[in-house]
Amino acid sequence: MTLRATILSTGDELTTGRIADTNASWIADKLFELGIDVVAILAVGDYPDRLAWAWRKAMAQADVVISTGGIGPTADDLTTETVAEVLGVPLVLDQPSVDRIRGFFASRGIDMPENNVKQARLPEGATIVPNNFGTAPGYRITQGGKHLVVLPGVPREMKPMMEETVLPWVRDLAGEEPPLVRTFQTFGISESGLDELVAGAVDPAGARLSFRASFPEISMRVVVRGADAEARLERISARVRERLGPWAIGEGAASMEQVVGEALRAKGLTLGVAESCTGGLIAHRVTNVPGSSAYFRGGIGAYANDVKERLLGVSPETLARHGAVSEETAGEMAEGARRALGVDLAVATTGIAGPDGGTPEKPVGLVCFAIATAAGTRTSRHQLWGDRGWVKILASQIALDIVRRHVLGLPPHEAELFRRR
Amino acid sequence: MTLRATILSTGDELTTGRIADTNASWIADKLFELGIDVVAILAVGDYPDRLAWAWRKAMAQADVVISTGGIGPTADDLTTETVAEVLGVPLVLDQPSVDRIRGFFASRGIDMPENNVKQARLPEGATIVPNNFGTAPGYRITQGGKHLVVLPGVPREMKPMMEETVLPWVRDLAGEEPPLVRTFQTFGISESGLDELVAGAVDPAGARLSFRASFPEISMRVVVRGADAEARLERISARVRERLGPWAIGEGAASMEQVVGEALRAKGLTLGVAESCTGGLIAHRVTNVPGSSAYFRGGIGAYANDVKERLLGVSPETLARHGAVSEETAGEMAEGARRALGVDLAVATTGIAGPDGGTPEKPVGLVCFAIATAAGTRTSRHQLWGDRGWVKILASQIALDIVRRHVLGLPPHEAELFRRR
Repeated sequence: MTLRATILSTGDELTTGRIADTNASWIADKLFELGIDVVAILAVGDYPDRLAWAWRKAMAQADVVISTGGIGPTADDLTTETVAEVLGVPLVLDQPSVDRIRGFFASRGIDMPENNVKQARLPEGATIVPNNFGTAPGYRITQGGKHLVVLPGVPREMKPMMEETVLPWVRDLAGEEPPLVRTFQTFGISESGLDELVAGAVDPAGARLSFRASFPEISMRVVVRGADAEARLERISARVRERLGPWAIGEGAASMEQVVGEALRAKGLTLGVAESCTGGLIAHRVTNVPGSSAYFRGGIGAYANDVKERLLGVSPETLARHGAVSEETAGEMAEGARRALGVDLAVATTGIAGPDGGTPEKPVGLVCFAIATAAGTRTSRHQLWGDRGWVKILASQIALDIVRRHVLGLPPHEAELFRRR
Repeated sequence: MTLRATILSTGDELTTGRIADTNASWIADKLFELGIDVVAILAVGDYPDRLAWAWRKAMAQADVVISTGGIGPTADDLTTETVAEVLGVPLVLDQPSVDRIRGFFASRGIDMPENNVKQARLPEGATIVPNNFGTAPGYRITQGGKHLVVLPGVPREMKPMMEETVLPWVRDLAGEEPPLVRTFQTFGISESGLDELVAGAVDPAGARLSFRASFPEISMRVVVRGADAEARLERISARVRERLGPWAIGEGAASMEQVVGEALRAKGLTLGVAESCTGGLIAHRVTNVPGSSAYFRGGIGAYANDVKERLLGVSPETLARHGAVSEETAGEMAEGARRALGVDLAVATTGIAGPDGGTPEKPVGLVCFAIATAAGTRTSRHQLWGDRGWVKILASQIALDIVRRHVLGLPPHEAELFRRR
């Protein structure tokens, strides 16, 4: 049977919104890789009654509870008292932990503050989880088939404790093979469109399918476990891959900019960009990829019209006749960038990111694109939506996908993105 | 009595560790500002029994439950069914929502997929929370003194819905004066440095002080409640403002790029950028501000050396003698951008973002900066840290702060940022 876990995070900084609970997501990811089913994540502030409530609920739902936070030396650190109370066991002083904490301070030439002794009072029956980077010892304790793990909230202490001690122990406890997972990254089709596209390709009895919109990309994850998982995952993946076609930009953790980079690198092509409405975002994304200097030579952000003329050679006639936001201008921008930057291919954007600047003929969200290559220039336009930031993100994504499809020899975008198929 | 809330986040992506629950921390922050006590945050995956469990526990602990996620169009979106089940009310079709969703697709020239109708089936008695950026309507529903709020998980949809509809309603519900809050945005000094800087300026009995690191900015929040709160907040703020000096970039929700934009606009100055290691990020951030075309004319992303020469006029001698990553090159880049873009001031970055490309003399994280104005050129360098993405963010932030300090007539950065004062 799959081992079930809950994650319990403690601290006012979580419930007052000062920090996001990145500990919980880190732990959840590690447990997922081991095939552990995380039933719930709970976060509560530093109050005895809330902590006791959270511990009781967390224990009721799972075989293993992994807790972070609330084991510091101060009065508002209440986790250990709560665990002892919930389990009905006394706190006992762990002398090796006292000695270790004293040594921790001594090595920094400081006397141990007396309230740090508190950190060495542990529930009776606890097994120490060593902490090599701080004073608080972690521990685990088992009662009535429930396993409780208590760790500090400081990530640089908690993470090594998880990796070195807790995860190997959890894996033994689970006693079974972790599941196999494959993720497909897609762009340009809606979640419901994807759902329909792969309908029938995945038997719900044999695999679990889930979607995650980290828009503008939507990823689809296939999870397979049990007998013959590897072969089944391969068969399912082959069917999914075929159904997705050019909508799939990659598998695994691939981002659009990584995929574009790999494609350019494989073909030995260099890229340049000319950006108006995306204002540097395409170049920023391309250069987020380590090693991108191998294929990316530069970009020209031409916000003002006369910069489009001077640096990109867009003709004043084109600007006057068709306007800055036009496929004609986009085309000349791409051609100008290709020349000015001396690259194999250049992509250009010009549009109205909003909130102002729209007209009935050219509403906010209209973005024109162009790609210029040795074979010529191709332009397109899309009516996008959302606020300014969103139009920029979506336009940068479409521009990168234009490059991806061109370099990989895939069909260009149809006029309408994100529709159902 | 203080209103109590729980936050409930739904989605396998949370319990399998694919994303951190940033929605919950954002909501917790907003509720904290209204003086609402967040008792717990719960996250569960897309399973009917877990969702029902979480809703029941969340309702038992609080007056208000704010939920995100699980209201998409696909079969694994189960929040609305669960709410109806837990409350014992039927689902009814909300025709205005159907029409709105159909209109949402129609405006993109797409037929509404049939499974989107599901998003318009709401628990009987629900009041719509309008969603202007997506198909899923949010709603709230009250039963037995418990208030349930259901929102989509997509942050760019959820956040405006919270700000425009839910928070004003929660504020009325709380019925008491919310505390007064002032937030100071700072950059360049550590949290402990800030703490020392304002020590003594804020009496803990009269105001609550908290820090939030949304690095590279750290914000400091002063919360005052009770009698005479307004006058006390003004007095405290004046003292804090004086202590923070040039480290404070703004008050309220001001971002660095907004502050820079306002300063440029107020002085009637135009800006251009020349980016190497930041690869378009500065231009991207500047153009995130609506109306930035009034002062931003363009940017040149000069990744390759010969682009630095051709488009920015950096001399081959400078590159050969000092290298691409040098204050000398940065200076010529800024001057070249100022000329090429025809702007009043230009800022330039060149550095080693990593992970490769470092040397003992010029390690990864070294970034050189320059600002060129009519009065001349000033250069500087900072040894930054962190991964590639982080070096880019930090470098873009420093570059913008150089512009801010220059335009506002503040002293330039000291060599070491982020140290304790």
